[in-house]
Amino acid sequence: MSKLDNGRSVSTIPTLGKYPLLDRVTTPDDLKNLSIDQLRQLASELRSETIDTVSTTGGHLGASLGVVELTIAMHAVFDTPDDKIIWDVGHQAYPHKILTGRRDRIRSLRQPGGLSGFTRRAESVYDPFGAAHSSTSISAGLGMAVAHHFQAEKDASYRERSVLAVIGDGSISAGMAYEAMNNAAVAGPGAKRLIVILNDNEMSIAPPVGSMSKYLSRLMTSRQFLGLRDLAGRFAKHLPSRLEHAAKRAEELTRGLIIGGTLFEELGFYYVGPVDGHDLTQLVPILRNLRDNNEGPILLHAITEKGRGYQPAESAGDKYHAVNLFNVVTGEQKKAPSGPPSYTSVMSRELLRCAGEDDRLVAITAAMPSGTGLDAFAKSHPERFFDVGIAEQHAVTFAAGMATEGLRPVCAIYSTFLQRAYDQVVHDVDLQNLPVRFMIDRAGLVGADGATHAGSFDLNYLCCLPNMVVMAPSDEIELTHMTATACAYDSGPIALRYPRGSGIGLDLPEKGEVLPIGVGRIVQEANTRPDQKRGVAILSLGTRLEESRKAADRLAAQGIPVTVADARFAKPVDTALIDRLAKRHDVFITLEEGAAGGFSSLVVRHLAETGQLDHVKFRPMALPDAYIDHNKPDAQYDEAGLTARHIVATAATALGVDIEAQSA
Amino acid sequence: MSKLDNGRSVSTIPTLGKYPLLDRVTTPDDLKNLSIDQLRQLASELRSETIDTVSTTGGHLGASLGVVELTIAMHAVFDTPDDKIIWDVGHQAYPHKILTGRRDRIRSLRQPGGLSGFTRRAESVYDPFGAAHSSTSISAGLGMAVAHHFQAEKDASYRERSVLAVIGDGSISAGMAYEAMNNAAVAGPGAKRLIVILNDNEMSIAPPVGSMSKYLSRLMTSRQFLGLRDLAGRFAKHLPSRLEHAAKRAEELTRGLIIGGTLFEELGFYYVGPVDGHDLTQLVPILRNLRDNNEGPILLHAITEKGRGYQPAESAGDKYHAVNLFNVVTGEQKKAPSGPPSYTSVMSRELLRCAGEDDRLVAITAAMPSGTGLDAFAKSHPERFFDVGIAEQHAVTFAAGMATEGLRPVCAIYSTFLQRAYDQVVHDVDLQNLPVRFMIDRAGLVGADGATHAGSFDLNYLCCLPNMVVMAPSDEIELTHMTATACAYDSGPIALRYPRGSGIGLDLPEKGEVLPIGVGRIVQEANTRPDQKRGVAILSLGTRLEESRKAADRLAAQGIPVTVADARFAKPVDTALIDRLAKRHDVFITLEEGAAGGFSSLVVRHLAETGQLDHVKFRPMALPDAYIDHNKPDAQYDEAGLTARHIVATAATALGVDIEAQSA
Repeated sequence: MSKLDNGRSVSTIPTLGKYPLLDRVTTPDDLKNLSIDQLRQLASELRSETIDTVSTTGGHLGASLGVVELTIAMHAVFDTPDDKIIWDVGHQAYPHKILTGRRDRIRSLRQPGGLSGFTRRAESVYDPFGAAHSSTSISAGLGMAVAHHFQAEKDASYRERSVLAVIGDGSISAGMAYEAMNNAAVAGPGAKRLIVILNDNEMSIAPPVGSMSKYLSRLMTSRQFLGLRDLAGRFAKHLPSRLEHAAKRAEELTRGLIIGGTLFEELGFYYVGPVDGHDLTQLVPILRNLRDNNEGPILLHAITEKGRGYQPAESAGDKYHAVNLFNVVTGEQKKAPSGPPSYTSVMSRELLRCAGEDDRLVAITAAMPSGTGLDAFAKSHPERFFDVGIAEQHAVTFAAGMATEGLRPVCAIYSTFLQRAYDQVVHDVDLQNLPVRFMIDRAGLVGADGATHAGSFDLNYLCCLPNMVVMAPSDEIELTHMTATACAYDSGPIALRYPRGSGIGLDLPEKGEVLPIGVGRIVQEANTRPDQKRGVAILSLGTRLEESRKAADRLAAQGIPVTVADARFAKPVDTALIDRLAKRHDVFITLEEGAAGGFSSLVVRHLAETGQLDHVKFRPMALPDAYIDHNKPDAQYDEAGLTARHIVATAATALGVDIEAQSA
Repeated sequence: MSKLDNGRSVSTIPTLGKYPLLDRVTTPDDLKNLSIDQLRQLASELRSETIDTVSTTGGHLGASLGVVELTIAMHAVFDTPDDKIIWDVGHQAYPHKILTGRRDRIRSLRQPGGLSGFTRRAESVYDPFGAAHSSTSISAGLGMAVAHHFQAEKDASYRERSVLAVIGDGSISAGMAYEAMNNAAVAGPGAKRLIVILNDNEMSIAPPVGSMSKYLSRLMTSRQFLGLRDLAGRFAKHLPSRLEHAAKRAEELTRGLIIGGTLFEELGFYYVGPVDGHDLTQLVPILRNLRDNNEGPILLHAITEKGRGYQPAESAGDKYHAVNLFNVVTGEQKKAPSGPPSYTSVMSRELLRCAGEDDRLVAITAAMPSGTGLDAFAKSHPERFFDVGIAEQHAVTFAAGMATEGLRPVCAIYSTFLQRAYDQVVHDVDLQNLPVRFMIDRAGLVGADGATHAGSFDLNYLCCLPNMVVMAPSDEIELTHMTATACAYDSGPIALRYPRGSGIGLDLPEKGEVLPIGVGRIVQEANTRPDQKRGVAILSLGTRLEESRKAADRLAAQGIPVTVADARFAKPVDTALIDRLAKRHDVFITLEEGAAGGFSSLVVRHLAETGQLDHVKFRPMALPDAYIDHNKPDAQYDEAGLTARHIVATAATALGVDIEAQSA
């Protein structure tokens, strides 16, 4: 690979194969005695190794390339793992993983049994706090810093540690980051070793929005990068003297006032920057000064470039935020095998159709226009599209406010991220019975992103809400109908949860039908009678329907009659359907792609209240009480015990018959 | 009542009875033609009526007294209900309720069937957005403003409305408010009629904390209130001309920079203030100018005094934040009938004892030191006590950070408010299996605060988390043991949920015992055998145990054997205990003070997996699928169907016997 000139962009293609410096790095200690020139060479090698790795594994490339120099500088200057580096979100930590003893496993990244695509405590002592959701790092870092200080107060021999929280400009727009800054600034000596590094690449997954983002741009453009003489030199000179500190702060404050950089100062942080986050000749001395002078909480504003140093990434609109396997030379990404459209795109298409017919429909995303499929809506109806940034709480209550005034808001948030707006869903939407439509993507298990991104709990936290309607489609046709249903529903809140990935390849209808609320459907019915109960009823919610049908076939092959029904609605449950199934079958299985107690608990309640529970063998099947590691989704559901094989086994055990539980 | 001099504090006692101006106010329209002097007289009467009302109902007095003038000024100037006033939290809206057609029912405040203690959409068109939790108003207001603008764009005849969000200085520290401001500032013309009124009384429930609070204090003390000539006059002169606006902004910005008032400007708001929030001669003209010149989003910084104009409230430490019935003349509050100590105080006492023995225990509250009982801890161990302000998200992850470094954090948050930190509980605590102790007060139904404050969902949203241990005490002795258990537990997260109100009057042990995790206890056991199942098993979680015992007595009087067990743990469930109950009884009832599907779903799962569900009549009893309005807690539980009478009826129906279901 061509040597990067001071970390600046190169247009030549990296040459792989030779890593003379990187090969000598086993732990971050091996960085301690390298010269700045050597660190720059190391950055070049580390960047190349990162590119090469992700070309074979896929993953979050752009963010990792943006922090190569920052990663090296932090590990070279600080005494990790005793000093703590917390990567906000954690998807930019691939170079960090390579430097911290995980290089030998780096090509197992995101693979079954391999390294996580995020930081993870269980994986390494160099990962002091796991992440995957954004904006948690300052809170966690403050907790650590306060804990260290507390221990040092008790034990004079305890050496306090520095805590570094590296947070992106997109992540800092979330309320949680503000809460943490608001608290850190008054934490006194407990926060003096807290260093927040604002990794400002003007890009979260999509370009960031909001006034904080505008403010950062102003900060950046209002002055040149401070050179070493201007900034780091002044630090080195001034900071060691506590006496001079007050004067220094006054000077900084004045400087800030003049150029408008005081928002962080006003929040009580000592603001340093902006600095070129790819220039090791700046980063290393500044970090040394910050390490040796504990005047925190400090915010170091580093300007970086997502995708830095890899021309195909730099040129791409999304800076290779998350990529499939790719050709290192050309940058060409391996196409996913062309299959049926994704659930996301099916929802997107039908939503767009509904929006064409109903100009009261508005759409809201929290920084995920592409991931949620709202990008199509944004393109067609920019005046009705709202990207509020990483701000799920605001997104939901903002939608509630619009609903009070007669608009029809559609709030599209992944299942796992909607957790961050739970109180808003309860208090602002459901309790007021406001018609907000929740499009909940990535419900159930999600594959390579693992447990942190799984949508396992939404049925639990939504089905308990009195006014909420909750739907889950069994296939993409159903998703089309349910999208139309959500758009048309005006009586209160309604949620639609659907999985990551592709549908099963069905032809989509021209337009979705508006479904009757709380009515399921029988997919195949056994010839059984109420006065002569026989066989098995499977009431499936969501895309386990296919496995249910496979299971039904195998049971039928053994002479066991099986009825398969698609619940469609987790709430309200279809009591007539439940009654029909309970009255005619020995065994009643419910199936849901979520933790126990969501959909099934409403079925149980009805069966118990009507006394039917005493006359049927009820078997709720749900996710196990465990986090499922990243893997192929099919393998995850197999591990979770939710495939045809498991359904057959459950039915057989309940019936007391012996059926060979063939593999699916 | 003595005439209040320009709203300033009076030390004389208000004289009640005569309301010549207030009696003429039926709707806010009646304020439109009153002079400033008349409005001041009205303020005096409204304040008196508010004091008199709350003296007979109890409630949030201090906050309401602080906004009397603001309430009048807003209704006098704006065209409500078409213009929207959103009261953040909503507990300061009593004067607003009196002015908006609810004076005839104001003495039903917080009473069964009466007015809510918060704003509520169902109650009045003048309440465009209900609240009770903090910091939602700017998001909701922005949603409304954007919706109005959107409609005006479509329909030229549509008159856009002003939207006012009145938010306290405590509430603005929550991340959600920041997210909303961050978004409002870039919402363009959609936000031009959004006016945020920062009601700065330097007091939330407890004194506010955090750097925003410090910043506001600096803003306030760095200059005198701007007089009418300085501020409102300048506005009147300058604002009408759009051409002069840019110059005006530059001037304001300069002014802000000099005195440090630009944080809100940097977030994109037009900052006006500080103004005296009790001076109608300032408020009315300023609000008129803001109404007529749509240069939003605007932040009007009003300084108010909590408890204003009522000497006992002004003198009290908590400014009569929430009071019991009281004597208007003396201010003396009616003591609650002296009864057993509250659950809160029992937890507080035992936590303090544990903290004395374990100096790694630290305690965290989100602005509720007194409500959570942590005030005692704060007094004894100030160095281990952290009030992070209204910032539940940060509180939880801050605790997680401390847990990684060997401290033993105790995070005390009401059930309903923990909803706001759900993602942090899942992603930062449970997924990483960090030993954070959650003390969840106000679990279940909570009485006069109503549905917005009910802790109905925590069992649902916590029992689905793989690593979480969840306890609920049946009485105050059990709470003592469980507090000790939570403090001692180091293997992962543990939550302890307990109700509002008093225990049942048991003598407390010197110290709590550490309970074995996941083990319940049999309270009274019927003489039944596995080979001869008879009668009823009641497995109760939480304080319904007393009702369970009453029910058992009544059933026993009918010759029906009943075993009563205290589950203690909602998770993990005691499978041995469940087995014993299921094997020996015809009917198996579970009881929980939460929505269906929390605790019971784990019992169902075990019974189904072991096949025992087929041989017992299982009846889960839980809260109904509805919000329960404010009322006495006993009446609420009766409405919810969770009293002895309901347990007897459930058992009788399951057994197929006829028992007179006497009233409890």
